[in-house]
Amino acid sequence: MKNFIGIDIGGTKISGAIIKNRTIYGDVIKKKTPFCTSEILENVFNIIDELMKKTDVEGIAIATAGAVNNENSKVIGSTGNLPKDYSSTNFKKIFEEKYKLPFLIENDANAAAFAEYKIGAAKGSQNSITVTLGTGVGGGIIIDGKLLKGKNGAAGEIGHIVLGIEENRPCTCGIYNCFEAYASGTGFKKTIQELSKTLPEFKTSCLANTNYDELSTYDVIQGYKNGDKFCTLAYETWEKHLIIGLISLANIFDPENIVISGGLAGEVNYEKVEKVINEKIVTTPIKLLPANAGNYAGMLGAVLLLEEKVEK
Amino acid sequence: MKNFIGIDIGGTKISGAIIKNRTIYGDVIKKKTPFCTSEILENVFNIIDELMKKTDVEGIAIATAGAVNNENSKVIGSTGNLPKDYSSTNFKKIFEEKYKLPFLIENDANAAAFAEYKIGAAKGSQNSITVTLGTGVGGGIIIDGKLLKGKNGAAGEIGHIVLGIEENRPCTCGIYNCFEAYASGTGFKKTIQELSKTLPEFKTSCLANTNYDELSTYDVIQGYKNGDKFCTLAYETWEKHLIIGLISLANIFDPENIVISGGLAGEVNYEKVEKVINEKIVTTPIKLLPANAGNYAGMLGAVLLLEEKVEK
Repeated sequence: MKNFIGIDIGGTKISGAIIKNRTIYGDVIKKKTPFCTSEILENVFNIIDELMKKTDVEGIAIATAGAVNNENSKVIGSTGNLPKDYSSTNFKKIFEEKYKLPFLIENDANAAAFAEYKIGAAKGSQNSITVTLGTGVGGGIIIDGKLLKGKNGAAGEIGHIVLGIEENRPCTCGIYNCFEAYASGTGFKKTIQELSKTLPEFKTSCLANTNYDELSTYDVIQGYKNGDKFCTLAYETWEKHLIIGLISLANIFDPENIVISGGLAGEVNYEKVEKVINEKIVTTPIKLLPANAGNYAGMLGAVLLLEEKVEK
Repeated sequence: MKNFIGIDIGGTKISGAIIKNRTIYGDVIKKKTPFCTSEILENVFNIIDELMKKTDVEGIAIATAGAVNNENSKVIGSTGNLPKDYSSTNFKKIFEEKYKLPFLIENDANAAAFAEYKIGAAKGSQNSITVTLGTGVGGGIIIDGKLLKGKNGAAGEIGHIVLGIEENRPCTCGIYNCFEAYASGTGFKKTIQELSKTLPEFKTSCLANTNYDELSTYDVIQGYKNGDKFCTLAYETWEKHLIIGLISLANIFDPENIVISGGLAGEVNYEKVEKVINEKIVTTPIKLLPANAGNYAGMLGAVLLLEEKVEK
């Protein structure tokens, strides 16, 4: 039974753990994500050194924000919250030279999708898409058991499928109407705010006295569960946006399943949404499933990818 | 140098030819597509028998309308213009028993994409998407040198990416706002008709006296080339619709190139559209290219797929 170290570098924190037999072994060590790359590396080294005191490991795998190249050695392009020189850092070279161990870095959403495919909700299927509904919308796509990477490793930007023609709602990427701008937590909140201005049901809603800026997805979901009319309309609008994006994915990929992860995954009506999608697609029926590889799917997936590489 | 027979079964006609060294050799034989499957098969047999009189062949490959299963033996689901029992017909069994030769059937858009990848505009790249802009919008997707087929062979339904949220424009598939409903010839015509009612420029256009039903993409493209204001606005609206669909594809696949084929391929401003796409995507720059595998890309691609199978 081989042990690996799995690391997750996110925009706000870095986590690391020993992965033994495809599960987290012992504690997960967490540190803040600093603002410069050298300090990020320092924190990762510290986590690794601490973990190595506990057990021998066969390799180190990192899941990171940002698209990762096809050689799994570095991040390409800009990465939002991470420092500028992050993408010019050759992680593979640095870590292999320092630790003399097999190493791999992969995008966190891709790694999480790989974990869902290997040990999670999509286990046993060869064609699967994982869609992460959080502050943004991310994802990873498995085709015939392999991660879709594209020519440079940037593929799988599910959040940036375009859902509308007119310039209605700006997306963080600079264009309008991306899936992310509607289906993410941020998008859902924007939908709620817009509807509060146009739907007459808002005036009689439990949220009628809430400030515009404080209208939250959490309150709307609670209101929806309690049968509030406005909240139900707002929730169903978000659900419609989600469905439209998932139809496009199902029509392009004919996958066995679509797995939903992220903060909003618990708020999806799986049975209903799956039924609507299957009524509307031109491809063959899919299964819609909640993710179950856990909160550390990213680092687990990175380790599973490394495991596969080492075995080859 | 091996010879193959390539067949193309479309909604209105069946074509067949000898394919020698990856090109059409001699005449292409054409017959009408009859309304029942047994007669379709009869016509295909006649074409094959005629072609076999000219030369020995190593295999038979068919490109057909309709999605084809992953075993390349039969069509799955409904196929629009083709008879109902078409999809319950095991082509592979029938043709292998009759001719004792390697056989393969593949969807025509997939086969054409494979031809573009092997011998056409996308030659030399490993990640390519071919989008066919005709009466409808079809396509085929190549990932790491392989056709994207999905769990049942139905993948690649590029025409049914959804471009809009509200129920604006019905698509032939039964839902609203598909890429096909906007970017196809039929969609372009619909756009022209809609704009003729809303744009004041129509009244002073060269098409001002054309009947609503007779407004055509051909006339608008001519008017656009002559600098007519209304025609330019209508053309640019179609172009915008095309760009939105292609952005989604580039963001999902990070392909090396997107190849445009079909009746409208000659009307695309490649340089301009490529530039706009590359400004708007979050993945890495693509090349936008006109198809060049020719009118028989479907049957050529089917033969190329068979060739690859035979070699393995």
